[in-house]
Amino acid sequence: MARLKLTLAYDGTEFSGWQVQAKNTGSVRTVQGCVEDAFALVLKERVRVHGAGRTDAGVHALGQVAHVDVPEPKAPIPWQKALCALLPRDLTVLKARLAAPDFHARYNAKSKIYAYSLWSNSRYIPQRRNFVWAAGELDLAAMDRAAAFFLGEHDFKSFQNQGTRVKNTVRTIMDIRRVKGRFPGEVVWRFQANGFLKQMARNIVGLLAAVGRGRLDPKEVPRIMRACDRSAAPYPTAPPHGLCLEKVFYR
Amino acid sequence: MARLKLTLAYDGTEFSGWQVQAKNTGSVRTVQGCVEDAFALVLKERVRVHGAGRTDAGVHALGQVAHVDVPEPKAPIPWQKALCALLPRDLTVLKARLAAPDFHARYNAKSKIYAYSLWSNSRYIPQRRNFVWAAGELDLAAMDRAAAFFLGEHDFKSFQNQGTRVKNTVRTIMDIRRVKGRFPGEVVWRFQANGFLKQMARNIVGLLAAVGRGRLDPKEVPRIMRACDRSAAPYPTAPPHGLCLEKVFYR
Repeated sequence: MARLKLTLAYDGTEFSGWQVQAKNTGSVRTVQGCVEDAFALVLKERVRVHGAGRTDAGVHALGQVAHVDVPEPKAPIPWQKALCALLPRDLTVLKARLAAPDFHARYNAKSKIYAYSLWSNSRYIPQRRNFVWAAGELDLAAMDRAAAFFLGEHDFKSFQNQGTRVKNTVRTIMDIRRVKGRFPGEVVWRFQANGFLKQMARNIVGLLAAVGRGRLDPKEVPRIMRACDRSAAPYPTAPPHGLCLEKVFYR
Repeated sequence: MARLKLTLAYDGTEFSGWQVQAKNTGSVRTVQGCVEDAFALVLKERVRVHGAGRTDAGVHALGQVAHVDVPEPKAPIPWQKALCALLPRDLTVLKARLAAPDFHARYNAKSKIYAYSLWSNSRYIPQRRNFVWAAGELDLAAMDRAAAFFLGEHDFKSFQNQGTRVKNTVRTIMDIRRVKGRFPGEVVWRFQANGFLKQMARNIVGLLAAVGRGRLDPKEVPRIMRACDRSAAPYPTAPPHGLCLEKVFYR
């Protein structure tokens, strides 16, 4: 067997997220499922593709990473080109390289960058409607003050959606910054962390939006974090289409 | 009556171009038709919306301009918001202002900027598939040399598609430049001219692509222009989805 490391980009709009859903694999269109289908066409057998992050339905990626074991071929297979030719138009393989036999896309990841794009009080651009949240008028400076409290190592249980069983909800956010987006008027929040709980990035942005709308004082953030309870942060989760998994870092 | 100046942005993917098509107005979805429908909902009567440029099917806009005459209202109508609320998601009004009674979106335009985006030998990004032409490997330096010949005042008849009756095919391109796109790997050609013939920008990019692929020497451009004959430039018109009407300038 040979282990491949794949770097993937996708427009998440038409996907029911990354993960193959056990109940009805056939009818639900997932990124993982589409990549596995492409491998099956080449290899004439099913293989399991393991992703670094399980992006939700509607969430995009510019640098998702995955690994997969394939039989040692008799002749080298140009995997990047072969897979791209077989994948649908909203999913592509940017790179496909041989990896060490023990490389694991998820467990070996040191950190990831997620970017959340929104419009605050600026005109909606139709070309970007599936990639940017039209969040309305926001006080960005207040959001900056709130965001600063998330930096560092914290228990993020208040920002984890239910339906997951994670023993340890402590994560370290090593960088949060607000940057300009790729199109005029777009505001982007970039989060780099050693890991993200389920919907953690979207729940943090949901809280930041509440701050930006004047519904929450930034100084309340430490109390909400200490509560370690999702109900302490009763603000709507930001919609998935603003979020993009930009990069996964390995040692 | 009051004359309004509108600035529009649209994702051209699902439109059959700007112009209402007389033959079967009802069944063909056009930008002009959708804007006129929105006015009709507010005004309870049809009005004609005049655009600065008649973009083709699949061509996008970030700064199309149009004018329209509306009855003087009893109370001011917040047109930008009203129209946006009624328009489909792939079309928006960025600005709506009162204009001089003799303002004409097309005849008063001094110049326009069209931008053409392509990928040359770089990975396709699914998020941008409807906005960037995957043109394959291109010699960009050779394209630069060819592009320089288009600057200035020329008869562009060799770059006008058939099916149009324009008396004067002389136009002035005051600026052509190759710039970086909004996403990594995107190459953008920006053309500023006092006017564009039918499919002129896409035909110029089609020729540039032929140069980039080594099928045409840049030095042949002056000869092709002098021929004043479309058959002298037998290179495929670049596809519409790479093109965007970025800006219209008025005095």
